[in-house]
Amino acid sequence: MMSIDVKSLIHEGAALTDRALESLIPSVETVPASIHGAMRHSVFAGGKRLRPVLVYQAGITIAGALPKGIERLGSALEMLHTYSLIHDDLPALDNDDLRRGKPTCHKAFGEAIAILAGDALQTRAFEVLAGLECPPAATVQIIGLVANAVGTVDGMIGGQVLDIESEHKKPTPELVDAIHRAKTGALIRVAVVSGGVYGGATAEQTARLDLFGRKAGLAFQIADDILDLTADSATLGKTPGKDQATEKATWPAVYGIDQSRRDAARLIDEAFAALEPFGHHADGLKEVARFLVERKN
Amino acid sequence: MMSIDVKSLIHEGAALTDRALESLIPSVETVPASIHGAMRHSVFAGGKRLRPVLVYQAGITIAGALPKGIERLGSALEMLHTYSLIHDDLPALDNDDLRRGKPTCHKAFGEAIAILAGDALQTRAFEVLAGLECPPAATVQIIGLVANAVGTVDGMIGGQVLDIESEHKKPTPELVDAIHRAKTGALIRVAVVSGGVYGGATAEQTARLDLFGRKAGLAFQIADDILDLTADSATLGKTPGKDQATEKATWPAVYGIDQSRRDAARLIDEAFAALEPFGHHADGLKEVARFLVERKN
Repeated sequence: MMSIDVKSLIHEGAALTDRALESLIPSVETVPASIHGAMRHSVFAGGKRLRPVLVYQAGITIAGALPKGIERLGSALEMLHTYSLIHDDLPALDNDDLRRGKPTCHKAFGEAIAILAGDALQTRAFEVLAGLECPPAATVQIIGLVANAVGTVDGMIGGQVLDIESEHKKPTPELVDAIHRAKTGALIRVAVVSGGVYGGATAEQTARLDLFGRKAGLAFQIADDILDLTADSATLGKTPGKDQATEKATWPAVYGIDQSRRDAARLIDEAFAALEPFGHHADGLKEVARFLVERKN
Repeated sequence: MMSIDVKSLIHEGAALTDRALESLIPSVETVPASIHGAMRHSVFAGGKRLRPVLVYQAGITIAGALPKGIERLGSALEMLHTYSLIHDDLPALDNDDLRRGKPTCHKAFGEAIAILAGDALQTRAFEVLAGLECPPAATVQIIGLVANAVGTVDGMIGGQVLDIESEHKKPTPELVDAIHRAKTGALIRVAVVSGGVYGGATAEQTARLDLFGRKAGLAFQIADDILDLTADSATLGKTPGKDQATEKATWPAVYGIDQSRRDAARLIDEAFAALEPFGHHADGLKEVARFLVERKN
Protein backbone atom coordinates (compact mmCIF):
# COMPACT_ATOMS: atom_id res chain seq x y z
CA MET A 1 0.00 0.00 0.00
CA MET A 2 1.25 3.47 -0.91
CA SER A 3 1.81 5.97 1.82
CA ILE A 4 -1.27 8.18 2.01
CA ASP A 5 -1.70 11.33 4.03
CA VAL A 6 -5.17 10.48 5.29
CA LYS A 7 -5.65 13.79 7.07
CA SER A 8 -5.12 15.83 3.89
CA LEU A 9 -7.33 13.45 2.01
CA ILE A 10 -10.14 14.00 4.52
CA HIS A 11 -9.45 17.73 4.62
CA GLU A 12 -9.64 18.04 0.82
CA GLY A 13 -12.83 15.99 0.67
CA ALA A 14 -14.40 18.19 3.34
CA ALA A 15 -13.37 21.35 1.48
CA LEU A 16 -14.83 20.02 -1.78
CA THR A 17 -18.07 19.24 0.06
CA ASP A 18 -18.21 22.65 1.74
CA ARG A 19 -17.86 24.44 -1.59
CA ALA A 20 -20.63 22.32 -3.12
CA LEU A 21 -22.96 22.79 -0.12
CA GLU A 22 -22.36 26.54 -0.28
CA SER A 23 -23.71 26.63 -3.84
CA LEU A 24 -26.44 23.99 -3.37
CA ILE A 25 -28.24 25.48 -0.34
CA PRO A 26 -30.14 28.72 -1.03
CA SER A 27 -28.46 31.83 0.41
CA VAL A 28 -29.77 33.63 3.49
CA GLU A 29 -30.94 36.38 1.13
CA THR A 30 -33.37 33.96 -0.55
CA VAL A 31 -36.99 34.28 0.68
CA PRO A 32 -38.06 32.94 3.14
CA ALA A 33 -34.76 33.89 4.78
CA SER A 34 -35.28 32.22 8.17
CA ILE A 35 -35.41 28.67 6.83
CA HIS A 36 -32.30 29.10 4.72
CA GLY A 37 -30.51 30.63 7.71
CA ALA A 38 -31.52 27.63 9.82
CA MET A 39 -30.44 25.10 7.17
CA ARG A 40 -27.06 26.82 6.84
CA HIS A 41 -26.63 27.15 10.61
CA SER A 42 -26.70 23.38 10.98
CA VAL A 43 -25.00 22.38 7.72
CA PHE A 44 -22.05 24.70 8.40
CA ALA A 45 -21.73 23.92 12.11
CA GLY A 46 -18.34 22.22 11.77
CA GLY A 47 -19.22 18.71 10.62
CA LYS A 48 -16.29 16.59 9.45
CA ARG A 49 -18.00 15.55 6.17
CA LEU A 50 -17.05 11.91 6.75
CA ARG A 51 -19.90 10.48 4.64
CA PRO A 52 -18.96 12.62 1.62
CA VAL A 53 -15.31 11.59 2.02
CA LEU A 54 -16.41 7.94 1.93
CA VAL A 55 -18.48 8.70 -1.21
CA TYR A 56 -15.43 10.18 -2.96
CA GLN A 57 -13.05 7.38 -1.96
CA ALA A 58 -15.58 4.76 -3.09
CA GLY A 59 -15.87 6.60 -6.41
CA ILE A 60 -12.07 6.54 -6.78
CA THR A 61 -11.99 2.84 -5.84
CA ILE A 62 -14.19 2.07 -8.87
CA ALA A 63 -13.19 4.73 -11.40
CA GLY A 64 -9.49 5.08 -10.51
CA ALA A 65 -9.92 8.86 -10.16
CA LEU A 66 -12.46 11.22 -8.63
CA PRO A 67 -15.60 11.04 -10.84
CA LYS A 68 -16.70 14.45 -12.14
CA GLY A 69 -19.57 16.05 -10.19
CA ILE A 70 -19.52 13.45 -7.39
CA GLU A 71 -19.53 16.28 -4.81
CA ARG A 72 -23.29 16.67 -5.45
CA LEU A 73 -23.77 13.11 -4.18
CA GLY A 74 -21.51 13.74 -1.18
CA SER A 75 -23.37 16.97 -0.38
CA ALA A 76 -26.78 15.29 -0.60
CA LEU A 77 -25.73 12.65 1.94
CA GLU A 78 -24.36 15.37 4.23
CA MET A 79 -27.72 17.20 4.00
CA LEU A 80 -29.52 13.99 5.00
CA HIS A 81 -27.12 13.44 7.91
CA THR A 82 -27.62 17.05 9.05
CA TYR A 83 -31.43 16.81 8.80
CA SER A 84 -31.32 13.75 11.08
CA LEU A 85 -29.18 15.62 13.63
CA ILE A 86 -31.56 18.63 13.65
CA HIS A 87 -34.58 16.41 14.32
CA ASP A 88 -32.67 14.21 16.83
CA ASP A 89 -31.77 17.31 18.85
CA LEU A 90 -35.41 18.50 19.17
CA PRO A 91 -36.99 18.71 22.65
CA ALA A 92 -39.32 15.79 21.83
CA LEU A 93 -36.33 13.59 20.94
CA ASP A 94 -32.86 13.99 22.55
CA ASN A 95 -33.51 17.56 23.75
CA ASP A 96 -29.95 18.81 23.16
CA ASP A 97 -29.10 22.50 23.45
CA LEU A 98 -25.60 22.24 22.02
CA ARG A 99 -23.99 20.38 19.15
CA ARG A 100 -20.30 20.77 18.36
CA GLY A 101 -20.25 23.60 20.89
CA LYS A 102 -22.91 25.68 19.07
CA PRO A 103 -26.62 26.14 19.82
CA THR A 104 -28.70 23.44 18.15
CA CYS A 105 -31.04 24.53 15.35
CA HIS A 106 -34.15 24.81 17.53
CA LYS A 107 -32.26 26.80 20.19
CA ALA A 108 -31.12 29.27 17.54
CA PHE A 109 -34.26 29.43 15.34
CA GLY A 110 -37.14 28.02 17.39
CA GLU A 111 -38.77 24.62 17.14
CA ALA A 112 -41.09 25.31 14.19
CA ILE A 113 -38.31 26.50 11.90
CA ALA A 114 -35.99 23.69 13.09
CA ILE A 115 -38.58 21.03 12.18
CA LEU A 116 -39.08 22.62 8.75
CA ALA A 117 -35.31 23.11 8.22
CA GLY A 118 -34.78 19.38 8.80
CA ASP A 119 -37.64 18.60 6.42
CA ALA A 120 -36.19 20.97 3.83
CA LEU A 121 -32.69 19.48 3.98
CA GLN A 122 -34.18 16.07 3.26
CA THR A 123 -36.15 17.48 0.31
CA ARG A 124 -33.17 19.40 -1.05
CA ALA A 125 -31.00 16.28 -0.79
CA PHE A 126 -33.34 14.38 -3.12
CA GLU A 127 -33.57 17.36 -5.46
CA VAL A 128 -29.76 17.48 -5.65
CA LEU A 129 -29.64 13.73 -6.31
CA ALA A 130 -32.12 14.17 -9.17
CA GLY A 131 -29.53 16.53 -10.72
CA LEU A 132 -26.58 14.10 -10.59
CA GLU A 133 -24.34 14.11 -13.68
CA CYS A 134 -24.50 10.36 -14.30
CA PRO A 135 -26.72 8.22 -16.57
CA PRO A 136 -30.43 8.44 -15.53
CA ALA A 137 -30.54 4.71 -14.69
CA ALA A 138 -27.65 5.17 -12.22
CA THR A 139 -29.32 8.27 -10.75
CA VAL A 140 -32.56 6.34 -10.19
CA GLN A 141 -30.61 3.46 -8.61
CA ILE A 142 -28.78 5.85 -6.28
CA ILE A 143 -31.99 7.63 -5.22
CA GLY A 144 -33.64 4.29 -4.42
CA LEU A 145 -30.63 3.12 -2.40
CA VAL A 146 -30.35 6.39 -0.48
CA ALA A 147 -34.08 6.58 0.32
CA ASN A 148 -33.97 2.98 1.53
CA ALA A 149 -30.99 3.77 3.78
CA VAL A 150 -32.82 6.74 5.31
CA GLY A 151 -36.10 4.85 5.79
CA THR A 152 -37.83 2.89 8.53
CA VAL A 153 -36.92 -0.69 7.59
CA ASP A 154 -33.26 -1.22 8.58
CA GLY A 155 -32.62 2.45 7.74
CA MET A 156 -31.73 5.59 9.68
CA ILE A 157 -35.24 6.54 10.80
CA GLY A 158 -35.96 2.96 11.89
CA GLY A 159 -32.76 3.10 13.96
CA GLN A 160 -33.83 6.36 15.58
CA VAL A 161 -37.13 4.76 16.59
CA LEU A 162 -35.42 1.66 18.02
CA ASP A 163 -32.99 3.93 19.87
CA ILE A 164 -35.79 6.00 21.45
CA GLU A 165 -37.71 2.89 22.42
CA SER A 166 -34.64 1.16 23.89
CA GLU A 167 -33.85 3.83 26.50
CA HIS A 168 -34.03 2.52 30.04
CA LYS A 169 -34.38 -1.05 28.74
CA LYS A 170 -31.62 -3.62 29.21
CA PRO A 171 -29.68 -3.70 25.90
CA THR A 172 -29.49 -7.11 24.21
CA PRO A 173 -26.91 -8.05 21.54
CA GLU A 174 -29.69 -8.24 18.93
CA LEU A 175 -31.02 -4.78 19.77
CA VAL A 176 -27.60 -3.10 19.79
CA ASP A 177 -26.77 -4.71 16.45
CA ALA A 178 -30.11 -3.63 14.95
CA ILE A 179 -29.75 -0.02 16.17
CA HIS A 180 -26.14 0.34 15.00
CA ARG A 181 -26.89 -1.25 11.66
CA ALA A 182 -29.82 1.07 11.05
CA LYS A 183 -29.24 4.37 12.83
CA THR A 184 -25.74 5.23 11.61
CA GLY A 185 -24.66 2.15 9.67
CA ALA A 186 -27.17 2.46 6.83
CA LEU A 187 -26.04 5.94 5.78
CA ILE A 188 -22.33 5.00 5.97
CA ARG A 189 -23.01 1.91 3.91
CA VAL A 190 -24.99 3.80 1.26
CA ALA A 191 -22.25 6.45 1.09
CA VAL A 192 -19.80 3.77 -0.02
CA VAL A 193 -22.24 1.94 -2.30
CA SER A 194 -23.66 5.05 -4.00
CA GLY A 195 -20.17 6.49 -4.52
CA GLY A 196 -19.31 3.24 -6.31
CA VAL A 197 -22.48 3.26 -8.43
CA TYR A 198 -21.74 6.87 -9.39
CA GLY A 199 -18.25 5.73 -10.42
CA GLY A 200 -19.75 3.06 -12.69
CA ALA A 201 -19.51 -0.04 -10.46
CA THR A 202 -20.72 -3.39 -11.81
CA ALA A 203 -23.18 -5.42 -9.72
CA GLU A 204 -20.31 -7.55 -8.39
CA GLN A 205 -18.24 -4.47 -7.46
CA THR A 206 -21.31 -2.91 -5.82
CA ALA A 207 -21.79 -6.04 -3.69
CA ARG A 208 -18.15 -5.82 -2.51
CA LEU A 209 -18.53 -2.15 -1.57
CA ASP A 210 -21.75 -3.04 0.22
CA LEU A 211 -19.96 -5.68 2.30
CA PHE A 212 -17.15 -3.22 3.06
CA GLY A 213 -19.65 -0.52 4.05
CA ARG A 214 -21.58 -2.86 6.32
CA LYS A 215 -18.51 -4.07 8.21
CA ALA A 216 -16.74 -0.70 8.37
CA GLY A 217 -19.94 1.14 9.37
CA LEU A 218 -20.41 -1.14 12.36
CA ALA A 219 -16.73 -0.75 13.30
CA PHE A 220 -17.09 3.07 13.25
CA GLN A 221 -20.11 2.91 15.53
CA ILE A 222 -18.36 0.58 17.99
CA ALA A 223 -15.37 2.97 18.00
CA ASP A 224 -17.78 5.84 18.69
CA ASP A 225 -19.36 3.97 21.60
CA ILE A 226 -15.90 3.26 23.09
CA LEU A 227 -14.87 6.89 22.62
CA ASP A 228 -17.99 8.07 24.42
CA LEU A 229 -17.08 5.93 27.43
CA THR A 230 -13.33 6.59 27.58
CA ALA A 231 -12.53 10.06 26.22
CA ASP A 232 -12.51 13.16 28.39
CA SER A 233 -14.73 16.13 27.57
CA ALA A 234 -11.88 18.29 26.17
CA THR A 235 -10.81 15.67 23.62
CA LEU A 236 -14.35 14.76 22.61
CA GLY A 237 -15.85 18.25 22.31
CA LYS A 238 -19.11 17.02 23.83
CA THR A 239 -20.22 15.66 27.18
CA PRO A 240 -18.77 12.13 27.46
CA GLY A 241 -20.74 9.34 29.08
CA LYS A 242 -24.04 10.72 27.81
CA ASP A 243 -24.97 7.36 26.29
CA GLN A 244 -24.29 5.69 29.64
CA ALA A 245 -26.27 8.32 31.54
CA THR A 246 -29.37 7.65 29.47
CA GLU A 247 -28.69 3.88 29.43
CA LYS A 248 -28.64 3.80 25.65
CA ALA A 249 -27.94 0.53 23.90
CA THR A 250 -24.22 0.58 23.06
CA TRP A 251 -21.71 -2.13 22.07
CA PRO A 252 -19.56 -1.82 25.25
CA ALA A 253 -22.71 -1.98 27.39
CA VAL A 254 -23.31 -5.47 26.01
CA TYR A 255 -19.79 -6.80 25.35
CA GLY A 256 -17.48 -4.71 27.56
CA ILE A 257 -14.68 -2.41 26.37
CA ASP A 258 -12.01 -5.05 25.61
CA GLN A 259 -14.28 -7.23 23.48
CA SER A 260 -15.58 -4.10 21.73
CA ARG A 261 -12.03 -3.11 20.76
CA ARG A 262 -11.37 -6.60 19.39
CA ASP A 263 -14.67 -6.57 17.46
CA ALA A 264 -13.87 -3.21 15.84
CA ALA A 265 -10.41 -4.45 14.76
CA ARG A 266 -11.83 -7.71 13.37
CA LEU A 267 -14.60 -5.90 11.44
CA ILE A 268 -12.06 -3.58 9.81
CA ASP A 269 -9.96 -6.58 8.71
CA GLU A 270 -13.07 -8.18 7.20
CA ALA A 271 -14.02 -4.89 5.54
CA PHE A 272 -10.55 -4.58 3.97
CA ALA A 273 -10.73 -8.16 2.67
CA ALA A 274 -13.83 -7.25 0.64
CA LEU A 275 -11.79 -4.60 -1.22
CA GLU A 276 -8.94 -6.93 -2.19
CA PRO A 277 -9.76 -7.13 -5.95
CA PHE A 278 -9.63 -3.31 -6.28
CA GLY A 279 -5.88 -3.21 -5.52
CA HIS A 280 -4.31 0.15 -4.82
CA HIS A 281 -7.38 2.08 -6.11
CA ALA A 282 -8.96 1.22 -2.74
CA ASP A 283 -6.01 2.53 -0.66
CA GLY A 284 -7.70 5.85 0.12
CA LEU A 285 -10.96 4.18 1.14
CA LYS A 286 -9.08 1.80 3.45
CA GLU A 287 -7.02 4.56 5.04
CA VAL A 288 -10.10 6.68 5.72
CA ALA A 289 -11.81 3.69 7.32
CA ARG A 290 -8.76 2.93 9.47
CA PHE A 291 -8.58 6.57 10.53
CA LEU A 292 -12.25 6.61 11.57
CA VAL A 293 -11.86 3.53 13.75
CA GLU A 294 -8.61 4.69 15.38
CA ARG A 295 -9.53 8.35 15.89
CA LYS A 296 -9.47 9.92 19.33
CA ASN A 297 -12.35 12.39 18.85
CA MET B 1 -67.79 17.69 -23.56
CA MET B 2 -69.05 14.22 -22.68
CA SER B 3 -71.10 13.78 -19.57
CA ILE B 4 -68.77 12.59 -16.81
CA ASP B 5 -69.74 11.32 -13.38
CA VAL B 6 -67.06 13.25 -11.52
CA LYS B 7 -67.90 11.75 -8.14
CA SER B 8 -67.33 8.18 -9.36
CA LEU B 9 -64.17 9.31 -11.11
CA ILE B 10 -62.84 10.75 -7.84
CA HIS B 11 -64.07 7.74 -5.88
CA GLU B 12 -62.31 5.29 -8.23
CA GLY B 13 -59.09 7.31 -8.15
CA ALA B 14 -59.18 7.36 -4.36
CA ALA B 15 -59.76 3.59 -4.21
CA LEU B 16 -56.85 2.96 -6.60
CA THR B 17 -54.64 5.14 -4.39
CA ASP B 18 -55.75 3.45 -1.18
CA ARG B 19 -54.90 0.01 -2.55
CA ALA B 20 -51.46 1.22 -3.66
CA LEU B 21 -50.75 2.95 -0.33
CA GLU B 22 -51.78 -0.22 1.51
CA SER B 23 -49.07 -2.17 -0.28
CA LEU B 24 -46.43 0.61 -0.33
CA ILE B 25 -46.35 1.47 3.39
CA PRO B 26 -44.86 -1.23 5.64
CA SER B 27 -47.44 -3.11 7.73
CA VAL B 28 -47.87 -2.53 11.45
CA GLU B 29 -46.23 -5.93 11.98
CA THR B 30 -42.97 -4.64 10.45
CA VAL B 31 -40.33 -3.61 13.06
CA PRO B 32 -40.24 -0.93 14.40
CA ALA B 33 -44.02 -1.23 14.66
CA SER B 34 -44.77 2.17 16.24
CA ILE B 35 -43.55 4.23 13.28
CA HIS B 36 -45.47 2.17 10.75
CA GLY B 37 -48.58 2.44 12.92
CA ALA B 38 -48.15 6.22 13.03
CA MET B 39 -47.58 6.51 9.27
CA ARG B 40 -50.70 4.44 8.59
CA HIS B 41 -52.76 6.32 11.18
CA SER B 42 -52.29 9.56 9.25
CA VAL B 43 -52.24 8.19 5.70
CA PHE B 44 -55.52 6.30 6.25
CA ALA B 45 -57.29 9.06 8.19
CA GLY B 46 -59.89 9.68 5.50
CA GLY B 47 -58.09 11.93 3.02
CA LYS B 48 -59.89 12.51 -0.29
CA ARG B 49 -56.77 11.67 -2.42
CA LEU B 50 -57.35 14.75 -4.55
CA ARG B 51 -53.69 15.09 -5.59
CA PRO B 52 -53.53 11.46 -6.82
CA VAL B 53 -56.82 11.97 -8.73
CA LEU B 54 -55.24 14.98 -10.47
CA VAL B 55 -52.16 12.84 -11.28
CA TYR B 56 -54.34 10.18 -12.93
CA GLN B 57 -56.46 12.65 -14.91
CA ALA B 58 -53.32 14.44 -16.13
CA GLY B 59 -51.92 11.07 -17.22
CA ILE B 60 -55.13 10.33 -19.13
CA THR B 61 -55.05 13.82 -20.69
CA ILE B 62 -51.68 12.99 -22.25
CA ALA B 63 -51.87 9.23 -22.88
CA GLY B 64 -55.59 8.92 -23.65
CA ALA B 65 -55.94 6.19 -21.01
CA LEU B 66 -54.70 5.59 -17.47
CA PRO B 67 -50.92 4.90 -17.74
CA LYS B 68 -49.89 1.59 -16.15
CA GLY B 69 -48.40 1.90 -12.65
CA ILE B 70 -49.27 5.60 -12.26
CA GLU B 71 -50.81 4.85 -8.84
CA ARG B 72 -47.25 4.74 -7.43
CA LEU B 73 -46.82 8.38 -8.43
CA GLY B 74 -50.21 9.31 -6.98
CA SER B 75 -49.40 7.49 -3.74
CA ALA B 76 -46.02 9.20 -3.41
CA LEU B 77 -47.65 12.64 -3.67
CA GLU B 78 -50.27 11.61 -1.09
CA MET B 79 -47.45 10.53 1.28
CA LEU B 80 -45.79 13.94 0.85
CA HIS B 81 -49.10 15.73 1.49
CA THR B 82 -49.69 13.60 4.60
CA TYR B 83 -46.16 14.22 5.93
CA SER B 84 -46.77 17.98 5.66
CA LEU B 85 -50.06 17.65 7.58
CA ILE B 86 -48.40 15.64 10.38
CA HIS B 87 -45.67 18.25 10.84
CA ASP B 88 -48.11 21.18 10.44
CA ASP B 89 -50.26 19.77 13.26
CA LEU B 90 -47.33 19.55 15.74
CA PRO B 91 -47.47 21.68 18.92
CA ALA B 92 -44.60 23.87 17.66
CA LEU B 93 -46.56 24.64 14.48
CA ASP B 94 -50.38 24.75 14.32
CA ASN B 95 -50.87 22.72 17.52
CA ASP B 96 -53.94 20.83 16.31
CA ASP B 97 -55.40 17.95 18.32
CA LEU B 98 -57.85 16.77 15.67
CA ARG B 99 -57.77 16.33 11.92
CA ARG B 100 -60.77 14.99 10.01
CA GLY B 101 -62.33 14.22 13.39
CA LYS B 102 -59.49 11.92 14.50
CA PRO B 103 -56.59 12.53 16.89
CA THR B 104 -53.60 14.03 15.06
CA CYS B 105 -50.48 11.87 14.79
CA HIS B 106 -48.70 13.40 17.81
CA LYS B 107 -51.82 13.08 19.97
CA ALA B 108 -52.06 9.39 19.11
CA PHE B 109 -48.36 8.44 19.06
CA GLY B 110 -46.45 11.20 20.86
CA GLU B 111 -44.39 14.01 19.40
CA ALA B 112 -41.16 12.08 18.79
CA ILE B 113 -42.83 9.38 16.71
CA ALA B 114 -44.98 11.95 14.88
CA ILE B 115 -41.89 13.92 13.83
CA LEU B 116 -40.21 10.72 12.62
CA ALA B 117 -43.40 9.45 10.92
CA GLY B 118 -43.55 12.68 8.89
CA ASP B 119 -39.87 12.32 8.03
CA ALA B 120 -40.41 8.71 7.03
CA LEU B 121 -43.36 9.46 4.75
CA GLN B 122 -41.21 11.96 2.89
CA THR B 123 -38.40 9.41 2.54
CA ARG B 124 -40.75 6.63 1.45
CA ALA B 125 -42.33 8.93 -1.13
CA PHE B 126 -38.96 9.43 -2.84
CA GLU B 127 -38.19 5.72 -2.61
CA VAL B 128 -41.52 4.95 -4.29
CA LEU B 129 -40.79 7.53 -7.00
CA ALA B 130 -37.41 5.86 -7.64
CA GLY B 131 -39.39 2.69 -8.41
CA LEU B 132 -41.72 4.24 -11.03
CA GLU B 133 -42.38 2.09 -14.12
CA CYS B 134 -41.40 4.73 -16.67
CA PRO B 135 -38.12 5.43 -18.53
CA PRO B 136 -35.31 6.42 -16.09
CA ALA B 137 -35.00 9.89 -17.64
CA ALA B 138 -38.71 10.56 -16.93
CA THR B 139 -38.32 9.20 -13.39
CA VAL B 140 -35.40 11.55 -12.75
CA GLN B 141 -37.36 14.48 -14.18
CA ILE B 142 -40.37 13.67 -11.97
CA ILE B 143 -38.24 13.36 -8.82
CA GLY B 144 -36.59 16.73 -9.52
CA LEU B 145 -39.97 18.41 -10.12
CA VAL B 146 -41.54 16.88 -7.01
CA ALA B 147 -38.60 17.76 -4.74
CA ASN B 148 -38.68 21.32 -6.07
CA ALA B 149 -42.43 21.56 -5.36
CA VAL B 150 -41.90 20.38 -1.77
CA GLY B 151 -38.90 22.65 -1.12
CA THR B 152 -38.24 26.09 0.33
CA VAL B 153 -38.11 28.25 -2.81
CA ASP B 154 -41.72 28.70 -4.03
CA GLY B 155 -42.47 25.19 -2.71
CA MET B 156 -44.58 23.70 0.07
CA ILE B 157 -42.07 24.13 2.92
CA GLY B 158 -41.36 27.72 1.87
CA GLY B 159 -45.11 28.36 1.97
CA GLN B 160 -45.37 26.86 5.48
CA VAL B 161 -42.62 29.22 6.65
CA LEU B 162 -44.30 32.28 5.07
CA ASP B 163 -47.60 31.18 6.62
CA ILE B 164 -46.09 30.90 10.13
CA GLU B 165 -44.34 34.23 9.79
CA SER B 166 -47.45 36.01 8.46
CA GLU B 167 -49.66 35.31 11.48
CA HIS B 168 -50.83 38.47 13.21
CA LYS B 169 -49.44 40.58 10.35
CA LYS B 170 -51.71 42.48 7.97
CA PRO B 171 -52.00 40.30 4.83
CA THR B 172 -50.93 41.99 1.59
CA PRO B 173 -51.92 40.77 -1.90
CA GLU B 174 -48.29 39.81 -2.60
CA LEU B 175 -48.01 37.77 0.60
CA VAL B 176 -51.31 35.91 0.11
CA ASP B 177 -50.35 35.12 -3.48
CA ALA B 178 -46.90 33.88 -2.43
CA ILE B 179 -48.30 31.67 0.37
CA HIS B 180 -51.05 30.15 -1.79
CA ARG B 181 -48.70 29.56 -4.69
CA ALA B 182 -46.17 27.80 -2.46
CA LYS B 183 -47.96 26.13 0.45
CA THR B 184 -50.67 24.22 -1.39
CA GLY B 185 -50.34 25.36 -5.00
CA ALA B 186 -46.94 23.83 -5.67
CA LEU B 187 -48.00 20.27 -4.84
CA ILE B 188 -51.26 20.58 -6.87
CA ARG B 189 -49.29 21.92 -9.81
CA VAL B 190 -46.68 19.17 -9.66
CA ALA B 191 -49.44 16.54 -9.39
CA VAL B 192 -50.74 17.67 -12.78
CA VAL B 193 -47.31 18.14 -14.36
CA SER B 194 -45.78 14.89 -13.08
CA GLY B 195 -48.88 12.92 -14.11
CA GLY B 196 -48.39 14.32 -17.60
CA VAL B 197 -44.66 13.54 -17.69
CA TYR B 198 -45.45 9.99 -16.54
CA GLY B 199 -47.94 9.77 -19.43
CA GLY B 200 -45.21 10.78 -21.89
CA ALA B 201 -45.91 14.53 -22.28
CA THR B 202 -43.75 16.58 -24.66
CA ALA B 203 -42.17 19.78 -23.35
CA GLU B 204 -44.97 21.85 -24.94
CA GLN B 205 -47.67 19.62 -23.40
CA THR B 206 -45.90 19.81 -20.03
CA ALA B 207 -45.93 23.61 -20.20
CA ARG B 208 -49.70 23.59 -20.83
CA LEU B 209 -50.32 21.28 -17.87
CA ASP B 210 -48.09 23.52 -15.76
CA LEU B 211 -50.18 26.57 -16.66
CA PHE B 212 -53.39 24.65 -15.92
CA GLY B 213 -51.98 23.45 -12.57
CA ARG B 214 -50.89 26.94 -11.57
CA LYS B 215 -54.26 28.54 -12.30
CA ALA B 216 -56.40 25.70 -10.98
CA GLY B 217 -54.26 25.30 -7.83
CA LEU B 218 -54.80 28.94 -6.92
CA ALA B 219 -58.53 28.63 -7.64
CA PHE B 220 -58.76 25.61 -5.26
CA GLN B 221 -57.05 27.54 -2.50
CA ILE B 222 -59.30 30.56 -2.93
CA ALA B 223 -62.32 28.22 -2.82
CA ASP B 224 -60.90 26.70 0.39
CA ASP B 225 -60.48 30.14 1.96
CA ILE B 226 -64.09 31.06 1.07
CA LEU B 227 -65.35 27.74 2.44
CA ASP B 228 -63.51 28.33 5.71
CA LEU B 229 -65.32 31.68 6.11
CA THR B 230 -68.81 30.66 4.98
CA ALA B 231 -69.45 26.98 5.77
CA ASP B 232 -70.86 25.80 9.05
CA SER B 233 -69.01 23.30 11.22
CA ALA B 234 -71.23 20.34 10.31
CA THR B 235 -70.70 20.76 6.55
CA LEU B 236 -66.98 21.42 6.83
CA GLY B 237 -66.01 18.68 9.32
CA LYS B 238 -63.62 21.06 11.06
CA THR B 239 -63.89 24.29 13.01
CA PRO B 240 -64.76 27.02 10.49
CA GLY B 241 -63.28 30.49 10.81
CA LYS B 242 -59.98 29.13 12.18
CA ASP B 243 -57.99 31.04 9.56
CA GLN B 244 -59.80 34.22 10.56
CA ALA B 245 -59.28 33.59 14.26
CA THR B 246 -55.52 33.38 13.81
CA GLU B 247 -55.52 36.23 11.28
CA LYS B 248 -53.95 34.04 8.60
CA ALA B 249 -53.31 35.49 5.19
CA THR B 250 -56.28 34.42 3.04
CA TRP B 251 -57.69 35.61 -0.30
CA PRO B 252 -61.02 36.91 1.12
CA ALA B 253 -59.11 38.78 3.87
CA VAL B 254 -57.45 40.83 1.12
CA TYR B 255 -60.12 40.96 -1.61
CA GLY B 256 -63.43 40.25 0.13
CA ILE B 257 -65.75 37.30 -0.55
CA ASP B 258 -67.39 38.53 -3.77
CA GLN B 259 -64.15 39.38 -5.54
CA SER B 260 -62.69 36.05 -4.33
CA ARG B 261 -65.59 34.15 -5.95
CA ARG B 262 -65.06 36.02 -9.23
CA ASP B 263 -61.29 35.38 -9.10
CA ALA B 264 -61.80 31.63 -8.59
CA ALA B 265 -64.23 31.47 -11.53
CA ARG B 266 -61.88 33.45 -13.80
CA LEU B 267 -58.86 31.30 -12.85
CA ILE B 268 -60.75 28.12 -13.71
CA ASP B 269 -61.70 29.55 -17.12
CA GLU B 270 -58.04 30.41 -17.76
CA ALA B 271 -56.97 26.95 -16.56
CA PHE B 272 -59.43 25.27 -18.95
CA ALA B 273 -58.18 27.38 -21.86
CA ALA B 274 -54.68 25.93 -21.37
CA LEU B 275 -56.10 22.42 -21.97
CA GLU B 276 -57.87 23.30 -25.23
CA PRO B 277 -55.49 21.36 -27.57
CA PHE B 278 -56.02 18.12 -25.61
CA GLY B 279 -59.70 17.93 -26.66
CA HIS B 280 -61.92 15.42 -24.87
CA HIS B 281 -58.92 13.59 -23.32
CA ALA B 282 -58.85 16.48 -20.82
CA ASP B 283 -62.55 16.22 -19.89
CA GLY B 284 -61.90 14.28 -16.69
CA LEU B 285 -59.18 16.70 -15.55
CA LYS B 286 -61.50 19.67 -16.19
CA GLU B 287 -64.43 18.11 -14.36
CA VAL B 288 -62.30 17.27 -11.33
CA ALA B 289 -61.01 20.85 -11.24
CA ARG B 290 -64.54 22.27 -11.53
CA PHE B 291 -65.71 19.96 -8.74
CA LEU B 292 -62.88 21.09 -6.44
CA VAL B 293 -63.70 24.76 -6.91
CA GLU B 294 -67.46 24.31 -6.52
CA ARG B 295 -67.42 21.84 -3.63
CA LYS B 296 -69.19 22.58 -0.35
CA ASN B 297 -66.78 20.83 2.02
